[in-house]
Amino acid sequence: MSPLAVSLGDPAGIGPELLCEAWAQREAERLPAFFAIGGARMLGAAAARRGIEVPVRQIQTPAQAMEAFDEALPVLDHQDGTYTPGAPDREGARLALASLEKAAALAIVGEAAGVVTGPVSKALLAEVGFAFPGQTEYLADACGVAEQDAVMLLAGPHLKTVPLTVHVPLSAVSGLLSVELITRRSRIVAAGLTRDFGIERPRLALAALNPHAGEKGNFGHEERDVIAPAIEALRGEGIDASGPHPADALFSGHVRDTYDAAICMYHDQALIPLKTLDFDHGVNMTLGLPVVRTSPDHGTAFGIAGTGKASAGATIAALKMAGEAVRNRTAA
Amino acid sequence: MSPLAVSLGDPAGIGPELLCEAWAQREAERLPAFFAIGGARMLGAAAARRGIEVPVRQIQTPAQAMEAFDEALPVLDHQDGTYTPGAPDREGARLALASLEKAAALAIVGEAAGVVTGPVSKALLAEVGFAFPGQTEYLADACGVAEQDAVMLLAGPHLKTVPLTVHVPLSAVSGLLSVELITRRSRIVAAGLTRDFGIERPRLALAALNPHAGEKGNFGHEERDVIAPAIEALRGEGIDASGPHPADALFSGHVRDTYDAAICMYHDQALIPLKTLDFDHGVNMTLGLPVVRTSPDHGTAFGIAGTGKASAGATIAALKMAGEAVRNRTAA
Repeated sequence: MSPLAVSLGDPAGIGPELLCEAWAQREAERLPAFFAIGGARMLGAAAARRGIEVPVRQIQTPAQAMEAFDEALPVLDHQDGTYTPGAPDREGARLALASLEKAAALAIVGEAAGVVTGPVSKALLAEVGFAFPGQTEYLADACGVAEQDAVMLLAGPHLKTVPLTVHVPLSAVSGLLSVELITRRSRIVAAGLTRDFGIERPRLALAALNPHAGEKGNFGHEERDVIAPAIEALRGEGIDASGPHPADALFSGHVRDTYDAAICMYHDQALIPLKTLDFDHGVNMTLGLPVVRTSPDHGTAFGIAGTGKASAGATIAALKMAGEAVRNRTAA
Repeated sequence: MSPLAVSLGDPAGIGPELLCEAWAQREAERLPAFFAIGGARMLGAAAARRGIEVPVRQIQTPAQAMEAFDEALPVLDHQDGTYTPGAPDREGARLALASLEKAAALAIVGEAAGVVTGPVSKALLAEVGFAFPGQTEYLADACGVAEQDAVMLLAGPHLKTVPLTVHVPLSAVSGLLSVELITRRSRIVAAGLTRDFGIERPRLALAALNPHAGEKGNFGHEERDVIAPAIEALRGEGIDASGPHPADALFSGHVRDTYDAAICMYHDQALIPLKTLDFDHGVNMTLGLPVVRTSPDHGTAFGIAGTGKASAGATIAALKMAGEAVRNRTAA
């Protein structure tokens, strides 16, 4: 297996220190080999500030990361920046962007096994010319995949969820749902669970939109008009899809055992149970791309950057999940 | 303290067996004294089917329950019904209704310390002439309280939440929210947490409606236009209100420690975290009434009635919480 490429994320956020922390825990956590793109000096400063011993080694090709990884955090390329926790600026955004672009490119051509992205400031990226709403959309575009076919899977130790709609007002959700949207994305999820997680026949549980699944149409018709027909269509294709389930009863312990992923209608329906259960270990994985891509499911957290308070749990989980997905794809 | 009055709920559901189970665990769980209204024969049959020893004793006045409770499950009144698990009918609904009406009346005149209601079939109650959407609205009316001032608090061992809107389509929620609704109900919650839980200065955390709290208006304006002004108004009255908080980050362990109740904008926003964390122990408490009222936060579960599978955890928690509220009100 070739190494994973990791983009730095914003150098003023918690990304760099967590990358160093993950490297320091590589043996205990049995992490797959990875390398950072750029930021050698900045990463050294982040490690020092966190009070951990992280030697950084410049490499010339991704393949060299395999050898270097045991003894040092491998860094490819020479772009660098200032490490000023909590004080993001455009220079930092440019470094984050260059790191992301190179990581994606290396994964696409196969020199990296996959890409793990660090947290960025979307607002600052936009200021330096980034024309995408987020990293996921950028990766879809770089891979030549339609934006709506890059599907966000949120995964923690206890639960996997997929928000079918994401960064839109709650009042707009109903109008965005369609049989086409639900079936198209659910198909991608089912295929992704097989390809990246090795689940032969994934069980998808589709959440209802309305309380009590609308209680027979008493409060809302989306279950009858859109979600149920989508489930029928998916079943017709041989996909193990169930629902629409009342969302409030879908995430308790014994119910979670009955499915592999919950397909949710909106952002908070997917994120509330995940963060309630697995706050420090959530991974954002993009399904539907030709390359493996994961990310810790948290932001730049500028407010605590450099304090040593940020948990590396999600970064470690994102590296592990990417490594497992690469292994599952290779084995298939 | 006088005893709590417990309404049977639908005799074909899990209410009666859980009431018997709770009585059987009265010592281990240190439950306050309670009595059932009607159903002596039916309760005996439910206990027998569940395989537990529950002597039932007919009492003539609520006060007699205090003496009887140690040795038998006290039952006031003589109405009764057939115990046919999983096969609800109108006769059963009439028994459930009579039991509810008497329990409410005894609490209102002060002969019972409070009322704990068993789960009913709303559809069947409607068929036998019950003119309210649910038991909460009935109790508000019986107490002479405006329906919008009877506020549902959902409480588990890990979390208390309040849904400001309840049984409405998700797409209708935005239009129902107003500064008036939020402040009015939040005031009732703050007062209820002091009166029933003994929390001197309750901390209320108000959830946002949109993902990421709308991200500065990028996806939704309800935070700016409605929720934030309501929070300002509450603070102006000396209530410790915070937010609007992104809902997905509000329910993880260390965040839950920062407030006493989360004020949620819609049903599933309040119920998803509660049931994810505390599925078998959720209590529905009505704040804003002159009487103490709690209920286990589950339905009739006709599908598993009589099988012995239903957990009495929520019934036991509802009895305890009612007893504590009565003590707190008396001590104040």
